[in-house]
Amino acid sequence: MNRILLESAEVGADGRVTLKDRQAAHVLQVLKSRPGDGVRIGVIDGLRGSAQVTSIEPGAVQLSCTLDTPPLPSTRTTLLLALPRPKVLHRLWAPLASLGLDRIILTGAAKVERQYFETHWLTPEAYHPLLIEGLEQSGDTRLPEVTLCRRFKPFIEDEADTCFAGATRLVCHPYAEKPLAAVLPAHGHPVVIAIGPEGGWTDYEIGLLQEHGFACASFGERTLRTDTAVQAILGAVLAR
Amino acid sequence: MNRILLESAEVGADGRVTLKDRQAAHVLQVLKSRPGDGVRIGVIDGLRGSAQVTSIEPGAVQLSCTLDTPPLPSTRTTLLLALPRPKVLHRLWAPLASLGLDRIILTGAAKVERQYFETHWLTPEAYHPLLIEGLEQSGDTRLPEVTLCRRFKPFIEDEADTCFAGATRLVCHPYAEKPLAAVLPAHGHPVVIAIGPEGGWTDYEIGLLQEHGFACASFGERTLRTDTAVQAILGAVLAR
Repeated sequence: MNRILLESAEVGADGRVTLKDRQAAHVLQVLKSRPGDGVRIGVIDGLRGSAQVTSIEPGAVQLSCTLDTPPLPSTRTTLLLALPRPKVLHRLWAPLASLGLDRIILTGAAKVERQYFETHWLTPEAYHPLLIEGLEQSGDTRLPEVTLCRRFKPFIEDEADTCFAGATRLVCHPYAEKPLAAVLPAHGHPVVIAIGPEGGWTDYEIGLLQEHGFACASFGERTLRTDTAVQAILGAVLAR
Repeated sequence: MNRILLESAEVGADGRVTLKDRQAAHVLQVLKSRPGDGVRIGVIDGLRGSAQVTSIEPGAVQLSCTLDTPPLPSTRTTLLLALPRPKVLHRLWAPLASLGLDRIILTGAAKVERQYFETHWLTPEAYHPLLIEGLEQSGDTRLPEVTLCRRFKPFIEDEADTCFAGATRLVCHPYAEKPLAAVLPAHGHPVVIAIGPEGGWTDYEIGLLQEHGFACASFGERTLRTDTAVQAILGAVLAR
């Protein structure tokens, strides 16, 4: 945990906060802080800052916070991801938040199994703590916006053009002629990157994405597991 | 498993192979192959190719192999990684092989805990099957070369210049001025990328790397978990 994140309602008008449970335990047992020590804090979807430990009681740590720094700059990157298996989805939430995505759109596809949509890892109560864990790791405060679009075709046909207006749209496809590096726009320009399911997008899905402004790009001939593919491809996109 | 990998000694002079155990189970239960069906095969550190199922007996599958395709082109990429925690090392072996690294050099560093070197995940018997799993996923046949250099200083001082002759040498450092994308060489040019431990390289280590030709590059301000950092940074390097 590189930054302790608070809900805005937890911070008093005078900047005082009482940490309990997991966060108090982190300050006491991992940071081993004492009164007077500093810790990094932030407000979810708000400012970053620092805090001083003012007092320590059993199970509770009092902080005095100074929140004066905006969130990290937006990466202007949206991930459009064919819903992976529940185990993989679970593993990906924290890394996706830590990488600083603006938006995560999970979609159905021909090769996405129907029962994947029944996982509790798609409920905000389950994934919100994992997104927070990712932000506490990265030091940022801004949560990615998460959307579930179960039906791929109507989403791409009816919403993609509005939803992705002004963004460079890319879809990773192993047989694409152009390498990913050749189609990435300059740093700061918004990007939507579509990553398919295990087994890939169908030709129909690729065609539909192309009709709606997505350019095909290759990340090489190696077939990667979804979690490796997502982190490696996002690495290439975020380093633009 | 996108390609079944064999030891060269397993393939008879006439191209016949008998699969057993895990590989036979994959052909029978996952691929559900029948006599006459084709499967993708390859020889570890050798040719890729295809095979036809010639007969199926309980627990054994006979194949007739045609090995006629060279391994995938080398990525010409070496990872110099400060040894991560055993759990993370375990998780990384297969993804590192699947990404197509040429070499993986694991090294000590000031912030690498000594007991990490005692893990059995550093023994070839433990990691070799995980590297094979990564290649079976990616479809390649070439194993990365793995080296353990426990002592960072003598390795960098005495061996790095010879070991990395002709390669662009980069070290990821959050406070570097230049972004990674600005210092990556062209596709095909060899690269060594150094990634530090949780908590980062010390100033001394960064200085030593710089004295031996490593340029500092930033992957952004977010602090990433080692496994996310490795996969994302390698994604950026491999997409060059």
